[in-house]
Amino acid sequence: MAKESEIFTVPARRGRAARLDKGQAIKVINTHGQQVVDFWAFRADDLGEFLSMEHLRATLEGIFPHAGCDLVTNQRRPILHFAEDTSPGIHDTLMAACDDYRYGLLGCTSYHDNCTDNLYAAMAELDLTPPECPSPLNLWMNIPVGPDGRTSWGEPVSKAGDYVVLRAVCDCVVAMSACPQDILPINGALRTPTEAHFQILT
Amino acid sequence: MAKESEIFTVPARRGRAARLDKGQAIKVINTHGQQVVDFWAFRADDLGEFLSMEHLRATLEGIFPHAGCDLVTNQRRPILHFAEDTSPGIHDTLMAACDDYRYGLLGCTSYHDNCTDNLYAAMAELDLTPPECPSPLNLWMNIPVGPDGRTSWGEPVSKAGDYVVLRAVCDCVVAMSACPQDILPINGALRTPTEAHFQILT
Repeated sequence: MAKESEIFTVPARRGRAARLDKGQAIKVINTHGQQVVDFWAFRADDLGEFLSMEHLRATLEGIFPHAGCDLVTNQRRPILHFAEDTSPGIHDTLMAACDDYRYGLLGCTSYHDNCTDNLYAAMAELDLTPPECPSPLNLWMNIPVGPDGRTSWGEPVSKAGDYVVLRAVCDCVVAMSACPQDILPINGALRTPTEAHFQILT
Repeated sequence: MAKESEIFTVPARRGRAARLDKGQAIKVINTHGQQVVDFWAFRADDLGEFLSMEHLRATLEGIFPHAGCDLVTNQRRPILHFAEDTSPGIHDTLMAACDDYRYGLLGCTSYHDNCTDNLYAAMAELDLTPPECPSPLNLWMNIPVGPDGRTSWGEPVSKAGDYVVLRAVCDCVVAMSACPQDILPINGALRTPTEAHFQILT
């Protein structure tokens, strides 16, 4: 039986990071059920090696990672094992983290909270600076891809309390952002970003 | 009528780079019809801003760029306009450039030519070092995505002489690699990488 840590909060519209020793796992909880959590992982001994969606898709031979698969880095080796998923398994690997440029294109004329800045802020709380903002694993983000390759901005199909468990294959640093997207419906029809939670399992 | 430069060769299994002034275009030619050409573009005044597949998909709302669309950077602004495509329009935005790790996973026990190293070598010929190997636009690479999100390694649907024309929205540096993949059938059933060609249009 895994030993669970206290429950940590990823506040709505904000990011958090945590260190995982090899063998530890993180349980990321979609507390209110409709919140996308952008997720990143970096090797603790080399932040230049990180979870990479474009390398993952090639290894996975698919666009949807699922419980049972390994999540790989830009050196194509596992960094996390996707151990458990209580949701229907709809996560996104296609879309970049939102950033201030994105909200400008969506019509915002002043600064908008965004996942890219949240990554840097979350890592800074651990006195770390990632070398870039890799394309994230967007947990619970529902981006249907039509037969013609067109994508759309769906609402999550997860429910309150759904969680994923990702187990560290090596010492790593993980970061999460409770996506502040409130213009498109990716965080649910109410377009209201909410908090998420996580626990460390040992 | 566009003025066409001499015809330059991208040798089989190798890379080449070129500078494009704003308004110039590059015509990339699939000379033998079955060759995937990994393609990158960087702003000339800041190599840290480059054509980005994960940002492109969000702007495009799709996984297949097509003639008429703009190709955007990691700052979500156009770098190239996709002006013309004589092929059926099947190009890939999902898969990372191949690298030596990839060929190791495919069973190679010694060094294998790869698009990532080709990018760095091509840029070095212009005395430039890209900050990273961005996920490329894989011209003519045919990666069908099934309704379940599974991908496969298809053969190109292009024919000999097909070409794309990409017009520079700003001064930029473009790079191409005639993908040396000879294990999977992405360069045709013969699994034999061939040369490609390009011209600069002014």
